[in-house]
Amino acid sequence: MRPSGRAPDEMRPISIETGFTKHAEGSCLIGFGDTRVLVTASVEERLPPWLKGKGEGWVTAEYSMLPRATHTRGQREAAKGKQSGRTQEIQRLIGRSLRAVVDLKKLGERQITVDCDVIQADGGTRTASISGAWVALRLAVNGLMAQGLIKEDPISAKVAAISCGIHQGTPVLDLDYIEDSNADADANFVLIEGGNIAEAQATAEGAPYDEEALLRLLRLARMGCAQIFEAQGKAVG
Amino acid sequence: MRPSGRAPDEMRPISIETGFTKHAEGSCLIGFGDTRVLVTASVEERLPPWLKGKGEGWVTAEYSMLPRATHTRGQREAAKGKQSGRTQEIQRLIGRSLRAVVDLKKLGERQITVDCDVIQADGGTRTASISGAWVALRLAVNGLMAQGLIKEDPISAKVAAISCGIHQGTPVLDLDYIEDSNADADANFVLIEGGNIAEAQATAEGAPYDEEALLRLLRLARMGCAQIFEAQGKAVG
Amino acid sequence: MRPSGRAPDEMRPISIETGFTKHAEGSCLIGFGDTRVLVTASVEERLPPWLKGKGEGWVTAEYSMLPRATHTRGQREAAKGKQSGRTQEIQRLIGRSLRAVVDLKKLGERQITVDCDVIQADGGTRTASISGAWVALRLAVNGLMAQGLIKEDPISAKVAAISCGIHQGTPVLDLDYIEDSNADADANFVLIEGGNIAEAQATAEGAPYDEEALLRLLRLARMGCAQIFEAQGKAVG
Amino acid sequence: MRPSGRAPDEMRPISIETGFTKHAEGSCLIGFGDTRVLVTASVEERLPPWLKGKGEGWVTAEYSMLPRATHTRGQREAAKGKQSGRTQEIQRLIGRSLRAVVDLKKLGERQITVDCDVIQADGGTRTASISGAWVALRLAVNGLMAQGLIKEDPISAKVAAISCGIHQGTPVLDLDYIEDSNADADANFVLIEGGNIAEAQATAEGAPYDEEALLRLLRLARMGCAQIFEAQGKAVG
Amino acid sequence: MRPSGRAPDEMRPISIETGFTKHAEGSCLIGFGDTRVLVTASVEERLPPWLKGKGEGWVTAEYSMLPRATHTRGQREAAKGKQSGRTQEIQRLIGRSLRAVVDLKKLGERQITVDCDVIQADGGTRTASISGAWVALRLAVNGLMAQGLIKEDPISAKVAAISCGIHQGTPVLDLDYIEDSNADADANFVLIEGGNIAEAQATAEGAPYDEEALLRLLRLARMGCAQIFEAQGKAVG
Amino acid sequence: MRPSGRAPDEMRPISIETGFTKHAEGSCLIGFGDTRVLVTASVEERLPPWLKGKGEGWVTAEYSMLPRATHTRGQREAAKGKQSGRTQEIQRLIGRSLRAVVDLKKLGERQITVDCDVIQADGGTRTASISGAWVALRLAVNGLMAQGLIKEDPISAKVAAISCGIHQGTPVLDLDYIEDSNADADANFVLIEGGNIAEAQATAEGAPYDEEALLRLLRLARMGCAQIFEAQGKAVG
Repeated sequence: MRPSGRAPDEMRPISIETGFTKHAEGSCLIGFGDTRVLVTASVEERLPPWLKGKGEGWVTAEYSMLPRATHTRGQREAAKGKQSGRTQEIQRLIGRSLRAVVDLKKLGERQITVDCDVIQADGGTRTASISGAWVALRLAVNGLMAQGLIKEDPISAKVAAISCGIHQGTPVLDLDYIEDSNADADANFVLIEGGNIAEAQATAEGAPYDEEALLRLLRLARMGCAQIFEAQGKAVG
Repeated sequence: MRPSGRAPDEMRPISIETGFTKHAEGSCLIGFGDTRVLVTASVEERLPPWLKGKGEGWVTAEYSMLPRATHTRGQREAAKGKQSGRTQEIQRLIGRSLRAVVDLKKLGERQITVDCDVIQADGGTRTASISGAWVALRLAVNGLMAQGLIKEDPISAKVAAISCGIHQGTPVLDLDYIEDSNADADANFVLIEGGNIAEAQATAEGAPYDEEALLRLLRLARMGCAQIFEAQGKAVG
Repeated sequence: MRPSGRAPDEMRPISIETGFTKHAEGSCLIGFGDTRVLVTASVEERLPPWLKGKGEGWVTAEYSMLPRATHTRGQREAAKGKQSGRTQEIQRLIGRSLRAVVDLKKLGERQITVDCDVIQADGGTRTASISGAWVALRLAVNGLMAQGLIKEDPISAKVAAISCGIHQGTPVLDLDYIEDSNADADANFVLIEGGNIAEAQATAEGAPYDEEALLRLLRLARMGCAQIFEAQGKAVG
Repeated sequence: MRPSGRAPDEMRPISIETGFTKHAEGSCLIGFGDTRVLVTASVEERLPPWLKGKGEGWVTAEYSMLPRATHTRGQREAAKGKQSGRTQEIQRLIGRSLRAVVDLKKLGERQITVDCDVIQADGGTRTASISGAWVALRLAVNGLMAQGLIKEDPISAKVAAISCGIHQGTPVLDLDYIEDSNADADANFVLIEGGNIAEAQATAEGAPYDEEALLRLLRLARMGCAQIFEAQGKAVG
Repeated sequence: MRPSGRAPDEMRPISIETGFTKHAEGSCLIGFGDTRVLVTASVEERLPPWLKGKGEGWVTAEYSMLPRATHTRGQREAAKGKQSGRTQEIQRLIGRSLRAVVDLKKLGERQITVDCDVIQADGGTRTASISGAWVALRLAVNGLMAQGLIKEDPISAKVAAISCGIHQGTPVLDLDYIEDSNADADANFVLIEGGNIAEAQATAEGAPYDEEALLRLLRLARMGCAQIFEAQGKAVG
Repeated sequence: MRPSGRAPDEMRPISIETGFTKHAEGSCLIGFGDTRVLVTASVEERLPPWLKGKGEGWVTAEYSMLPRATHTRGQREAAKGKQSGRTQEIQRLIGRSLRAVVDLKKLGERQITVDCDVIQADGGTRTASISGAWVALRLAVNGLMAQGLIKEDPISAKVAAISCGIHQGTPVLDLDYIEDSNADADANFVLIEGGNIAEAQATAEGAPYDEEALLRLLRLARMGCAQIFEAQGKAVG
């Protein structure tokens, strides 16, 4: 029995509110249950120095938790003067996930930076970030295409992510904070619409797991991502 | 004529949505027109080392802009590794403004940290932050009193803040970004319900101003704060 | 009765020794009583990147306290690895105050950096810094004009600053450290010769203050700045 | 055909030289082909503050590349003043991998820090680090047991790691630098002797991969880790 | 012929003005020609953690150049966020030099921090700093003895330092900036009254030097330090 | 009697293994007894900005201790976020020592960075670093000459360094860690083959020393460096 009363393969409600801020070229507030992340995609007509003159663009991401997104207040990274290893790990993952579905040549010599700021955390902030990041990116690219700045769509498919794990011996989908805190294994899958995998990460927290468990988690992830793909589709119209 | 078409003494609509996040002891999303700030008040039963054992508490504040709160994306301070002078100046001002209406002895040996994170900026982010900070603080203190942790109310009055300035020769209230960018003088007043001043700051940007102008700005600020006090009152019930 | 025995509107003796260091294009050691600040103005024929090619120059300031300028030794900011919020707030104020009387176009494409290093602190270090900064800047600009590098004088007027505050119920001028430590309100005014205001900042420390008090402080500041303008005039000959 | 001429399931030669430095409680120089990592395990009879008094110990890891371990010199992280996201990601992974086979209660209230310094890099530095880290940890724990400081062996099994990937359409084991630079997918598996998985990470670099590919990579990893377990066994005698 | 017209063994005028700042327990402004350093000695009744409870005290030093102490403005170290290698090297040398003549047990469990801030630089700032540091330290210790806080004098002798070098083939004493910039060899000697050496550092800048040259430089340094010891004696009365 | 049983003028065995890593243009593992330093010389066809366009090159050095090179683990400088004063002092010394025998014009517009990473420390790490740095530099320059990139040999002579000190009243050569920890004086000499001195540094740790002692230390250093020059010669063939 899950603490939330959900069935093992039951997602929390997904909500995606696009256009949440007025300045960004693409934005949304994405919710997986009580986890809420504000995502903006910013288009800049400039490139990092190491990419200049190669005839292609760049997509990157930054991630942050507001200090009181969590149960107890965490120290602000800007005040500490550095980003934690966890923050850097997550923002690198978000960037890689987006680039898995973007043709950087078609994007042209410009950079899109996707900022994922967690407003409220209840487990799954990195997977909500990736799923929302695709929406913000899609909206920003739509704008570039509408303006005629991009000819061919550089985005080849949807990408979404979901966590799953083994909780008290049972593989479960979309862990909330309580489950996440005492799961035996904790996995994050980044899937591409159509069935392929962009990234799989599965970590034993309590007891190590076997190949069978890995496959069962992957199947749960497929079920979850199917629902996210649908919500993403509705959100971007 | 103001770019927004507002009268010189006309505020933008004020919105205050309390309880915007579930973990913080007090929180609100405050809007002055398109400027929106998420404010949380976090109660911690510990004190900074220099205050321990003095029989009193502490109220402090932190401020940040999300990278794409603004027209163009700004670099994330956590990534730069330090907070700008502007950020530090603002968060010091928010803390002082709150402490002007809090009796730290009555608060007891605990710390309340108010986080003001600007989600969308259109001028007046520091004054919206102060005005929202009072709401979040009030809610957090209400909770402490309801739990019996505080006997006497440590908050003596409401505090609110508003910007005003001289725009094309005319003193105007509640500058938005366009006005702020080319004002001749730019002032921020932090007022206490009942008529007193907690902080006055008036800076000549283009041309210096005279005593008469300073007084006219202060009178506009009184009008603006009266409306904020009313909105604060409604918000905290 | 003031701790120093001064009358409420009585300044401490002002001393300005120009040419205190031989390398700087302009320099002075300014004293307001026991507060002493070494100020240098450095001319550089280069600009910050964001100002290049606009046909105008820049004036900026940096501020620091020597570790033992104060009663007890403070940690050196270079050793801590960052400047405090207070330091940044003050150096931003000094820069703004100087720019209020400088026509950057007439200055031409060069930068003047004014360094204010507090050698001994006894209250009023920021206002002494501003008042001395004008002297160092004036001397540096005189040099540029004498060399024919600048045709028209870019400095339109003198600028000076003074602190005042409410001490035991009485508005007083030019607070020393003892008064400053227990003032009810603490204000700094930056005034321009001729009567206008460049910056007004008034903060309630103990009890909030009213409009009447603000005006009385401003009038004291006018009296103080009149004496500083005179001392500046003598110093630059 | 692999650039090195190896068969798809062929590892590079593994070398483990124990006791490489004289001060550390456990140490080895591990080589996977031309990749060489110096690993030391340091026992300290103290704990991080957040673990004190819980009756258990801690195992953690740090990772670094010498500046010229790579084809071209990289900037020294100590000179840059911060560790890269990649470094932090890797050292977090090493620590988790070791803790997957350590009973922290049996370790007692002490900390073991495993330092992995890459002397020469040719692909697979993180997996060589994990595999060598187990050896250094085993030796350090052997010492503690020989001294009677630990009664029951806190290490439950061997742990080893290996990279594999899809190179020109073929799943291959133990990628060297040339393969790693243009693999379509890149995976790292951390396996526990006996068959379980401690961590699986598989990233699409070029084209996304499917479930079948993930399983084939896992099977290659099992073959590789079997050889590492054997080498580890010989090394620790 | 030296650029300044001085004889090879001729020092610049030495000036020592004690009590230059009112807060420090000991202070002086020391000048070697145009080089001027403000030195303060601060007594604190606390110790660094690693020295607590050993029944002895500590003497340490910090060094800094004001940004415009030099011909062209240098960036402020507090603004850069770190102290240069040169700064750290010099402040370590000053501390070692002072400790060479202090009995830390007789000092008792307190710390004296000597701050050397270069106000104007014309060569020899580190040696002027050491020579002035002894004066400030002597004055601070005199104060502690006068208050009865220290029974036995912890200072065993005077310590002074002087630079010398080989300039256009000739060994010369007390290099000014012009000489220092194109010396073939540059040495700093820290000598103890009575004839012993606390520290010798001689660096070939242009051409390497031989043993004979090293000895000639040392003899010049003895002549210079004799004059400094005399000036120190007069300064502390 | 020395703790190691060595005669006062007896060096520890010197070992130099060239080509220790495959990527660097020059490299060696140098050992002075149990002190072992991995040195690499990296050639880069670029220059620091301040040297561009002057028709000459640059040679610089970086130094680091692996965290467990020492008896107890030291904190990693990359994790602390800054290099210690000691590290900076040593790497500046290594760079100066190399430049004393390099004609930067003959090197041409390129930079050689020598990295000295101490793998195991037992006293004398800075002198072993300098002595090994020359070997790595020599090998790198040989490569440049073999490729025809440099016409005339920019290296004029060998440079080597050795520590010596006064231990229990006796001048001794090549101090190991135990001697170094309680020497009365500690000196490092950097000598150039042929007899000249590049750098001499002699510090009193316990008691100050006299001119006679300085000369005796220098003579010991000459004996030690003669052996190092021989080992360097064999190493580079």
